[in-house]
Amino acid sequence: MNSRPSEITLKPIGFVRNGITEKSTRRNWDDVISEIVIRPELSQALDNLDEFSHIIVLFWTLRDKHQQLAYKVHPKGSPDLPLVGLLATRSPDRPNPIAKTTVELHERRENILKVKGLDAFEGTLVIDIKPYLPGYDSVEKAKTPGWAKERPANP
Amino acid sequence: MNSRPSEITLKPIGFVRNGITEKSTRRNWDDVISEIVIRPELSQALDNLDEFSHIIVLFWTLRDKHQQLAYKVHPKGSPDLPLVGLLATRSPDRPNPIAKTTVELHERRENILKVKGLDAFEGTLVIDIKPYLPGYDSVEKAKTPGWAKERPANP
Repeated sequence: MNSRPSEITLKPIGFVRNGITEKSTRRNWDDVISEIVIRPELSQALDNLDEFSHIIVLFWTLRDKHQQLAYKVHPKGSPDLPLVGLLATRSPDRPNPIAKTTVELHERRENILKVKGLDAFEGTLVIDIKPYLPGYDSVEKAKTPGWAKERPANP
Repeated sequence: MNSRPSEITLKPIGFVRNGITEKSTRRNWDDVISEIVIRPELSQALDNLDEFSHIIVLFWTLRDKHQQLAYKVHPKGSPDLPLVGLLATRSPDRPNPIAKTTVELHERRENILKVKGLDAFEGTLVIDIKPYLPGYDSVEKAKTPGWAKERPANP
């Protein structure tokens, strides 16, 4: 409490390899297979992770550090949706641009994780990997507003 | 890809206020009510968040920066459980000590969020807040190993 730091420094633990760049027109990530390449010295820390079917990936989405953040945004950039608080959305452009996605873990080989459904471009920095624990990470009866309703994935 | 930074700098967006210090013997957090005090200049970014029943809190758990990380650990510090890879656990002592907890949002007043179930001590730095989206954040049939099975909360 006394010495609350004003800055925190992270060191990425790895990066994403999937060949999908920001120039790609693909925007449905559900079936995308990516590799997460973890720093080799952390390889041992990945042991047993493949006993889980799903993992949580925290990654860094900063694209333009000179960009001024808007605190009110249209969810998903859609002008049809109301203007809402930035932190009430999952916009990647946020005060600390960290995204959290739960993905299927297909395989772990040494320091490489093969996952399905990670919505991150080639080269994205990964800052943490966690096992997905249903009893801790999911909520049975969560309420969300109409404007945040997820639509079915595109065919 | 070309210029992958080796360090990332975050600025906390707020901190936890609940009066629970590390000296407290309480370890069941389910019913703990905490306030998350967000930097006042971000207040507007919290608009509409209270339309969600649950939010995801990312917070910083670093306690001893000189501590050497063990890459193999007993889950929950329990010697009865097998030694597994650190990143296959939710240990707060990890390469980037970020914790992710989904909590009930009870109230938002200006820059203050009142939440239930946040497993963070007084003064913990908060680095991101996200709305909980069931279709995105939960997985229906996730597989977890026996040693990771969550036990019912203590009475």
